[in-house]
Amino acid sequence: MFLSKLFLPITKNLPSDAKIKSHQLMLRAGMIKQSSAGIYSWLPIGLKVMKKIEEIVREEQNKIGAQELLMPTIQPAEIWKESKRYEDYGEEMLRIKDRQGREMLYGPTNEELITDIFRSSIKSYKSLPQMLYHIQWKFRDEIRPRFGVMRCREFFMKDAYSFDVDEANAKISYNKMFYSYLKTFKRLGLQAIPMAADTGPIGGDLSHEFIILAETGESKIYTDKSIFKIDVNNYNFDIKSLEKMRNDFSSVYAATDDKFEQIKFDKLVTKQNQIITKGIEVGHIFYFGDKYSKPLNCFIDNKDGKKNSVKMGSYGIGVSRLVGAIIEANYEKEVMKWPKSISPFDVVIIPSISKNNKENLTKSLKLYDDLKKQNIDVLLDDVDENMSQKFKKHDLIGIPYQIIVGSKSTESKIEFKEINSESSFIDFKEVKSKIKS
Amino acid sequence: MFLSKLFLPITKNLPSDAKIKSHQLMLRAGMIKQSSAGIYSWLPIGLKVMKKIEEIVREEQNKIGAQELLMPTIQPAEIWKESKRYEDYGEEMLRIKDRQGREMLYGPTNEELITDIFRSSIKSYKSLPQMLYHIQWKFRDEIRPRFGVMRCREFFMKDAYSFDVDEANAKISYNKMFYSYLKTFKRLGLQAIPMAADTGPIGGDLSHEFIILAETGESKIYTDKSIFKIDVNNYNFDIKSLEKMRNDFSSVYAATDDKFEQIKFDKLVTKQNQIITKGIEVGHIFYFGDKYSKPLNCFIDNKDGKKNSVKMGSYGIGVSRLVGAIIEANYEKEVMKWPKSISPFDVVIIPSISKNNKENLTKSLKLYDDLKKQNIDVLLDDVDENMSQKFKKHDLIGIPYQIIVGSKSTESKIEFKEINSESSFIDFKEVKSKIKS
Repeated sequence: MFLSKLFLPITKNLPSDAKIKSHQLMLRAGMIKQSSAGIYSWLPIGLKVMKKIEEIVREEQNKIGAQELLMPTIQPAEIWKESKRYEDYGEEMLRIKDRQGREMLYGPTNEELITDIFRSSIKSYKSLPQMLYHIQWKFRDEIRPRFGVMRCREFFMKDAYSFDVDEANAKISYNKMFYSYLKTFKRLGLQAIPMAADTGPIGGDLSHEFIILAETGESKIYTDKSIFKIDVNNYNFDIKSLEKMRNDFSSVYAATDDKFEQIKFDKLVTKQNQIITKGIEVGHIFYFGDKYSKPLNCFIDNKDGKKNSVKMGSYGIGVSRLVGAIIEANYEKEVMKWPKSISPFDVVIIPSISKNNKENLTKSLKLYDDLKKQNIDVLLDDVDENMSQKFKKHDLIGIPYQIIVGSKSTESKIEFKEINSESSFIDFKEVKSKIKS
Repeated sequence: MFLSKLFLPITKNLPSDAKIKSHQLMLRAGMIKQSSAGIYSWLPIGLKVMKKIEEIVREEQNKIGAQELLMPTIQPAEIWKESKRYEDYGEEMLRIKDRQGREMLYGPTNEELITDIFRSSIKSYKSLPQMLYHIQWKFRDEIRPRFGVMRCREFFMKDAYSFDVDEANAKISYNKMFYSYLKTFKRLGLQAIPMAADTGPIGGDLSHEFIILAETGESKIYTDKSIFKIDVNNYNFDIKSLEKMRNDFSSVYAATDDKFEQIKFDKLVTKQNQIITKGIEVGHIFYFGDKYSKPLNCFIDNKDGKKNSVKMGSYGIGVSRLVGAIIEANYEKEVMKWPKSISPFDVVIIPSISKNNKENLTKSLKLYDDLKKQNIDVLLDDVDENMSQKFKKHDLIGIPYQIIVGSKSTESKIEFKEINSESSFIDFKEVKSKIKS
C-alpha cells in the first residue's frame, strides 16, 4: 500500500474528552472516527489491527474445540423475560420497538439467545460437551461512555458458551477456556493476570477476570511479582495439566479492589514482591451452572434416563476494547510500537524525497515490489514531506520496522530500524528474517 | 472436523412459511435458526459458507483498490436529517431512542455516514479518487420478512462508496465496480446479468442491478441469450477496456419488469434468443453525483482553487442474501452442490460403520489425517447410521466431493464421488488434485 493512497486521516485536533493515551492515539492516527457518543467508525488501519486481533482470538477458540456461529445483534425481549433479566438489566440495555410494536433489544450479551439455540438443537448427553462462540457487535447504553474504544456503547466482542452434563465436566470446560485466554493474550503481546472476580449481573459462583497492568486502568490491583513466572506454555491441553495450571495461579495472591484484603496481602506476599498498580480488564469468564438453562428449560437426557438442566459457563473477550488496551500497554513517550502479530503493516519504507531527486523513491519502489513478492505486507511512505515529519507520523502509526532510504543507504546495504532502537545497515535478504522472526 | 462433534442440528420440521427451497434447505441442514421474524442466527456450517462469500467479496473489492473500513450499526439521526432522508425512509427504518432520549437508528444503508466520514477527512482533489467499503450488518424493518435470508430484516451487506472530482471520473469508478462485481459473482459460481435499473430511494440517474436467473426469483426478467457470451475475463482493468465492457453489455437487451418494453424486446431480440424468466438480485450499483455530498457539505478543493461537491456512487452486495441465492441456483431434486469456492468443507469421508466392524472407520481416520496434512478441510462422518441415511444427509449438506469407505474400497484404490455423478475408484494421491482443480 502506498501511503498517498491510504485512507488515513491523521489529525492534530483532539476533542477535550480524549483523556487517555489510547483514545488520543487512535484519533490522531486516523484509526477511528467518532460517529456519536461512544460509537465509532473504524478507519482502515484501525480496522486492520482489530481484524488481526479477531483472527487470533478465533484461532485460539478453534484450537480448544469451540465452534463458531453468529447470533444476530437484535434479539426478541421474550427470552430475556424467561430468564428474568429483562427488567433487571436496567437502562444499559438498548430497548427497541419494531414497526409491529414488538419489544426487541440490541444484545448486550448472549446467554439467553445461545440457550435458546441450544435447547432446540441438543437433546442428549452424548452430544456434550459443547463450546460455542461468536464474535459480534454488542451494545451497552453506558450513561457516560469514555476512554474511546475502551468504554464505548457499540463494541465488538467474542463471547463463548460451554455446555456440560454436570459441574465436574463444566469445570474442565472452564479450565480449557482459561488456558485458551492465556494463549490468546500471549499472542497479542500481553501479559494478562487471571484474578478471581465477582460475577456481577451474569451470575454464578466462579469467575475470573484477565487483567493487564496499565497505569491508566480502571481497576486497582494487588498481586505478587511471582505470578509472572507462571507460563501457560509449560502446561498441556489435558485435564490434569489444566487443573494444575489453575491451581498454580490460584496459589499466588492476586486481587482487584473488590476482593482485596490488606492483612492477607501482607501475610502472603513479601514487601519486595508486592505489586500495587492499576489494570485493564481484557477478558472475563464465568461458570454459572443452570442459572439460564433452568428458567429457559434447557434440559438434556442423561445417561440414567433422567432429564437434567445443562451446566453452562460464558467467556468474553472485548475485541474492540483490546485495541485500546494494547495501545495503553505499548505506547510510551509519543512512540507507538505494535506487537508484530497485529501491526497494521509488517514494515514501512521511508524514502527521503525531494522535488528534484526521485532516486530514493525509485529505489524504494524496487524494495517495495521485492518485499511484496515475499508476502510481506509493506507500506511505502511516498508522501512528499521532510524526514522529521515522516518519523513523527510513523511514531504515531507504530509499525514496528522501518526501512529508511536516504543518503546513507548504499547499493548493497539498506538502513533498517526497529522502532525505539538504533538503525543498522543490513543486506536486503536479511529483511524478511528480521521482520518475521 | 468429526460430524459427531459438529454443531449441526439437522431437522425435518419446517415452519409453514418456509416456501422456497433455499429457506427450507438452510433450516433442514442446520445452517440457520430463526431468532425472531426475519432475524436469524447463523449456525456453524451456514456461517462458514457466508464467511467464504464475504472473503471473496472482500478480495475482489481490494483488488480494484477499494479500502475497507467499518461503520457502526447504530447511527445518529442528525445526518439523515441533513440529507432529508430521515422522514422519507418511512417505517423500514428501525428508529431507536437511547437512554438520553437521542434519536438514533439502525443503519439500513450508509450514504450519509460515509459522507460524514469523508467530509471531515479529505479536502483536496489530490486525494481522489477514493473507494471505501465496509461489510456490516444492516437492518430494514420489512413489513413482511420472507424467503429466509433472502428478504430478512437483519442482513449482512457489503456496501462501497466512490468519491471523484467530476462525473467523468466517477463513471470510471462505476465501471471498475461493475467489473469487480462480475468477477466476484463468477468466483461464486454465479452467472450474473447486469441490467439497467431504477434508482429508487438511493437516488441518482445511473444504476445497474446484477441478477442471476432462478425460477424462484422475485423479479421477472427479459433478455437475450447472447448476453451469456460476454465474459468479464476478456476485459482488462484499464479505462478503455472497462468502458468497452460496459458498452458490450449495454448493447444486449436485458430488462426487468420495471423497464421492460415488449416492442423493443421483439425488435432487438430474435424469438429463439429471447429469455423470459425470473431472477434474483444479488448486487446493485448506483451513480448519484452530489445527491448526498451537496446537502452534507462535502466539498473538495479542486485544481482551479474552487470548492466543488464530490461526486459519489454506491455499490451493494447482499452477502447473507447470496447464501440463499446460491442455494436457489444450485439445489436441484433434493441434492445440494456447493460451488467449491464456498463449500462448508472441501470433502467428506463417509465410512460404512457397523457396531461390530470399525475397520472402515479406522481406515477413514487415516485418510482424514492424511488429507488434513495436505491442508484439505475435511469432514469425517463418524456417526453410526446406515449408508442410505448418510447419503440423504449429505445431499442436504452439499459438500461437492465424497470419499466412500465401504466394502468396495481396496488397499490401493478409494471410492471417490462428485455429488450428482457416478463414483469412481482412484489412487489416494489423486484426491487433492480432484478437489482443488
